[in-house]
Amino acid sequence: MMKLFKYPTDLEALIKRPLADTLSLNNKVNRILDKLKAEGDAALRYFTEKFDQVTVQNFKVTEDEIQRAVSLVPDSLKEAILQAKSNIEKFHESQKDSGQIIETSPGIKCWRKSVAIDRVGLYIPAGAAPLFSTVLMLGIPAKIAGCREIILCSPPGKDGNINPVILYVAQLVGCTQIFKIGGAQAIGAMAFGTETVPKVFKIFGPGNQYVTAAKQIVSMQGTAIDLPAGPSELLVWADESATPAYIAADLLSQAEHGTDSQVVLVSLSDLTIKSVLDELETQLKVLPTKAVAQESLKMSFALILKSEEEILEFINTYAPEHLMLNIRNPEDQIGKIRNAGSVFLGNYTPESLGDYASGTNHTLPTNAYANAYSGVSLDSFVRKITFQKASVKGLVNIGWAVERMAEAENLPAHKNAVSIRLNQINSV
Amino acid sequence: MMKLFKYPTDLEALIKRPLADTLSLNNKVNRILDKLKAEGDAALRYFTEKFDQVTVQNFKVTEDEIQRAVSLVPDSLKEAILQAKSNIEKFHESQKDSGQIIETSPGIKCWRKSVAIDRVGLYIPAGAAPLFSTVLMLGIPAKIAGCREIILCSPPGKDGNINPVILYVAQLVGCTQIFKIGGAQAIGAMAFGTETVPKVFKIFGPGNQYVTAAKQIVSMQGTAIDLPAGPSELLVWADESATPAYIAADLLSQAEHGTDSQVVLVSLSDLTIKSVLDELETQLKVLPTKAVAQESLKMSFALILKSEEEILEFINTYAPEHLMLNIRNPEDQIGKIRNAGSVFLGNYTPESLGDYASGTNHTLPTNAYANAYSGVSLDSFVRKITFQKASVKGLVNIGWAVERMAEAENLPAHKNAVSIRLNQINSV
Repeated sequence: MMKLFKYPTDLEALIKRPLADTLSLNNKVNRILDKLKAEGDAALRYFTEKFDQVTVQNFKVTEDEIQRAVSLVPDSLKEAILQAKSNIEKFHESQKDSGQIIETSPGIKCWRKSVAIDRVGLYIPAGAAPLFSTVLMLGIPAKIAGCREIILCSPPGKDGNINPVILYVAQLVGCTQIFKIGGAQAIGAMAFGTETVPKVFKIFGPGNQYVTAAKQIVSMQGTAIDLPAGPSELLVWADESATPAYIAADLLSQAEHGTDSQVVLVSLSDLTIKSVLDELETQLKVLPTKAVAQESLKMSFALILKSEEEILEFINTYAPEHLMLNIRNPEDQIGKIRNAGSVFLGNYTPESLGDYASGTNHTLPTNAYANAYSGVSLDSFVRKITFQKASVKGLVNIGWAVERMAEAENLPAHKNAVSIRLNQINSV
Repeated sequence: MMKLFKYPTDLEALIKRPLADTLSLNNKVNRILDKLKAEGDAALRYFTEKFDQVTVQNFKVTEDEIQRAVSLVPDSLKEAILQAKSNIEKFHESQKDSGQIIETSPGIKCWRKSVAIDRVGLYIPAGAAPLFSTVLMLGIPAKIAGCREIILCSPPGKDGNINPVILYVAQLVGCTQIFKIGGAQAIGAMAFGTETVPKVFKIFGPGNQYVTAAKQIVSMQGTAIDLPAGPSELLVWADESATPAYIAADLLSQAEHGTDSQVVLVSLSDLTIKSVLDELETQLKVLPTKAVAQESLKMSFALILKSEEEILEFINTYAPEHLMLNIRNPEDQIGKIRNAGSVFLGNYTPESLGDYASGTNHTLPTNAYANAYSGVSLDSFVRKITFQKASVKGLVNIGWAVERMAEAENLPAHKNAVSIRLNQINSV
């Protein structure tokens, strides 16, 4: 069960996430990536047999396979997915940027233009749960951004196929090529390209520690990645207006993600904490994913603090991936939340709404990365290229400043690029 | 002088940038960072004596030192800097995001809020040129974003002081603390914190290979960085409407940056290329930074291609940091430019305008990173936190979809967080 701390003196200790030792892991993953770079498809075949224990003839999923998968998905699930898709589309469509032209000085026009990344790669893990919701979260903004190629890799099951719901959603959102490849080898294939898999410029998506390590390694070698990854987290701030059974259900929804998930409950009220912990125990008993949730709760804690200011300071220092404000007037606190991935307000906004269907993206910064990183959004799939055009008048207006500054930075050719034009303008 | 290629068959070879071997460098930098993490200020003192050959008593620049520096900067330079500042402010102010509330389904409200990164660190190299323009380019958006602490590190000169123009601009843009620290040790100090230097969440700024390696290493250990760095580049597309002397001056302005800078000139016209190369030779002879420019031109090339389509394909594959369109109707090509950092249109927009004073940011993706990365902008200094609030009606509207999807992903506690609320709503 969760640990309980009341008025602890060392909050710093509670903020630290467990640190994984990644050195031996990195060595292993480096060997996979090196072999992949050298041998391409042959290495893919080798690792797929070794790790997925299945022989895949053609990594690329065919149109027939997709159609078969589509027919296997129950209509009720399709309907739910379409509802989620509509909301995610609306929210990400709203993130489009018009890029107005700014005249910074008379005759100097500057603007930004959002341009989609040409080729992106989405990695979707399989294993215990087929994470088709992540296909929605990554595929929809990629499509709205206008990426020309959207490559998806997901590991083959023992039957050599990708989970049908993943295939259904992949075609629904407009992935252009789908490959039956998993693990670090999938990341390597998309980062370096093989005979079969196109090289992409940015890789998105969650995964186990091998996938995470591979993403970090390729990000040092020229391929961008969405976010540094860590175990999922939920921090709930509750007061006596909260319904303990709801909070307990929310904490468990986070705890069932993995044994390394961390959930934190913070409150001013002993009573609230006690009621939630009691409910948690009751609900845990009948939870089908109890084994996982139990382990993750051991790493988790409830915290009683003395003032709202202390709670806010704790939240902002912890910088949670998900933050639920189950308090009387959550809107009053919005301006004081500085570090979080995504924030859920009030009693009727469980975190799982955002995981699936409200419209916000569920790919979010964990491990206190919210201090510096945003979650995935439309922005993640575009570059904002700056443009500028000076008229003769514009150049005259600011050229002198460039000349003076270039001179002071000891860059005479920078100065001359302006002077040579100004001289000609003045001589006319 | 630049190499010349006419209708080459292997464009791929021209697109590849020289690859630096970073392994031994990384080992060296890792040792610096480790010592810094372990010993803090003592290590800073050690490395400053070792690398900067100067003993610094107090790393933190005092108010007196700043005032003295301010008095040393000539008025004409101050005036130029204020002109640049005004333009950079206008352009970056325009990048503010209002964050409208989107009702994705009735009763489901989602929005994003831009929140400044609490503490950022700016690294400004010294050496041959005091890059005060970079202080403008990083400090101004940090201030507009609302970062609470803006830390600046720059190496001390032989006299133990930071260049006065850097200090002047640092106080002008609102840096909150300035430290006389350079090299990989400065990056380490800001990433890990020492007794004197606060730990920051994101580090910005250019530097030599040690600084670049240190930034990349700390980015794997929890501190975000602006961009992966590489040598600066300029690609110029010119036609017969271009003025050869202008283009030559622009190519030289890029070439003088460093011996590893790369400049590329591409055209359909033999005559244009020949005229520019002739001018280049003439201008190079009298250039005070000739020694550097000459070296960098050896790595550079001019390219004659057969069609506009080929040129556009080359540009988009090369993905230059800076792209000048010195052609008749540059606006017609904007929609076809997919991969570039910053684009300069027409005869009167030399690249050096953007380096200093037009208003766009000069911290841009090199080394084909423009395929996946944008340059620094206001966005680089904020996180966009997502918020959401569901009403009872909203939860009823989309709750069923969440239940169905969570079930299909084998996450029963995710489903239950919705069901437990819906059950209570329905029972009322």
